[in-house]
Amino acid sequence: MTASGGTRGGIDLGGTKIQAVVVDASNQVLGQARRRTPTEGGPAGVGAEIAATLRESAEAAKVATESLAGIGIGSPGDANESTGVVSGARNLPGWEGSFPLGESLSSELGAPVRVGNDVQVAVDGEFHLGAGREFESVIGVWWGTGVGGGLVLEGRPWLGRGAAGEFGHIVVRRGGPRCSAGHEGCVEAYAGRASMERWARKHLDKGEKTKLFEIMAEHERDRLTSGIWERALKHGDKLAEKLLKRAEKALGVGIASAINLLDPDAVILGGGMGARFAERSLPEIERHMSPYLFAPDDPPEIRAASLGDLGGAIGAALLV
Amino acid sequence: MTASGGTRGGIDLGGTKIQAVVVDASNQVLGQARRRTPTEGGPAGVGAEIAATLRESAEAAKVATESLAGIGIGSPGDANESTGVVSGARNLPGWEGSFPLGESLSSELGAPVRVGNDVQVAVDGEFHLGAGREFESVIGVWWGTGVGGGLVLEGRPWLGRGAAGEFGHIVVRRGGPRCSAGHEGCVEAYAGRASMERWARKHLDKGEKTKLFEIMAEHERDRLTSGIWERALKHGDKLAEKLLKRAEKALGVGIASAINLLDPDAVILGGGMGARFAERSLPEIERHMSPYLFAPDDPPEIRAASLGDLGGAIGAALLV
Repeated sequence: MTASGGTRGGIDLGGTKIQAVVVDASNQVLGQARRRTPTEGGPAGVGAEIAATLRESAEAAKVATESLAGIGIGSPGDANESTGVVSGARNLPGWEGSFPLGESLSSELGAPVRVGNDVQVAVDGEFHLGAGREFESVIGVWWGTGVGGGLVLEGRPWLGRGAAGEFGHIVVRRGGPRCSAGHEGCVEAYAGRASMERWARKHLDKGEKTKLFEIMAEHERDRLTSGIWERALKHGDKLAEKLLKRAEKALGVGIASAINLLDPDAVILGGGMGARFAERSLPEIERHMSPYLFAPDDPPEIRAASLGDLGGAIGAALLV
Repeated sequence: MTASGGTRGGIDLGGTKIQAVVVDASNQVLGQARRRTPTEGGPAGVGAEIAATLRESAEAAKVATESLAGIGIGSPGDANESTGVVSGARNLPGWEGSFPLGESLSSELGAPVRVGNDVQVAVDGEFHLGAGREFESVIGVWWGTGVGGGLVLEGRPWLGRGAAGEFGHIVVRRGGPRCSAGHEGCVEAYAGRASMERWARKHLDKGEKTKLFEIMAEHERDRLTSGIWERALKHGDKLAEKLLKRAEKALGVGIASAINLLDPDAVILGGGMGARFAERSLPEIERHMSPYLFAPDDPPEIRAASLGDLGGAIGAALLV
């Protein structure tokens, strides 16, 4: 357990939203706020909006940001825990380079700031407070726009030389289709929401029938969110069903490979798609995983993340 | 570093040979002996031969087995470190069930005996004394009859719930051919020496030309050893070349997946095939690995095991 250290802030920085919480010493949420991630203004603009969101959550909790014991932030891209610099966050506007996010927020909010990887921070949160509480070692599989991951081994985050946990880039089919990062046949190429959308468009262009894009237009969205996939499935959309099955299969095979290498106590499925489809997909993922396990009679527990929408931000607060 | 504890014995128990060493406090070899693994007599018969081999190495070292600080043994199958029982060692004659190898050897040789997994023990040896000496975290890839593996993370063997390190059962091609354990498209199905031999026979039966089996007959062997593969390659045998390339490709893809998950300091390639082909195959494996890496600009070191034929037995002595 990370030291509690009184009242703290936590921020989950995503490509579409910024979620902030203020939690007490036992990690109960005292206040929270959510804002859209700005699409303009570069890293400094995003930084200002993060500060505003955290301030809003502190107001809801009736504390001054200056009185917080510290603020943790889970960030996409390469988040350097020791320097607080975030680099190559390609999901964020104008953030191809580096930005001293920790330093900038710290002087803005008057409290120490610690920066971590968004997925690792969310996995840590589930490990300490959610679906992973009873285990010592878990693999977190974060199924969302991409497919991320995080490892906790014997109670401690495993970062390797800094880039460990890239579950989504485990190969499931050599020579298979490419993910957005250009790797052939990795889990993300099949199961990432962005890849699934590219596949859906490809099938649509070939004349296949699907309601996915109609539903997207009806809801005035510009991409196939997990909610849109869910609606299409409820309408019995065959292409949506096919592509979700394909994703479940890839996740199952990738999880089997990860288990064969690490043999953890448990695998935790989180992320936007994971949260939306856990009930339906977990049994399917396990079914596809099982034939590839080295020790199929004794698989680890496979669980859905349990902290919900605030999990990433609460996990970030554990950085302090 | 495992405590040195004076003069110790180490045994590498394989399906074809038993290698024993006696080492001093600084792990220098004082004596060694090698015998064929008996093909009859069941676990008790193998146990007796192990004791005889260790005794022979102790004579060469001019010490009594009773004066050894302890004896470590790396065993195939499921080697229980706490009980000394070895189960399901299918490469050994009549060893489908369980046998108290530790207890039996200890009473026979008059010294405490510790049992460990053969591949993990060999990887530990390379980590502490060989190619992995300068690193903190390594993945060992043991390319032999099968493809085994072992992990050392921050200086300690990582066993998970007991079955970690099964690198050979990482999937490289969903829906691909099966390994001897029945798993589809795993590294071992392409690269294990036994799988390669099955492939070679299949191609031969289809009328493809190869010198592999002629060379095997000339050398009065009943299987395609790594030496036979090497001779066939020297003769320009096209089938041998094709199957070795296929193995290198699978190893490269599997290693990339393992790196993406764990991001270790180094990968060490060992095992009978690894030792024989490291010079030729390491660059090929790296070439096939690279396109699948999440962080291709900063790959871990890829090294050949450096302790040679005695590595497994020396690693076993580190169990004490």
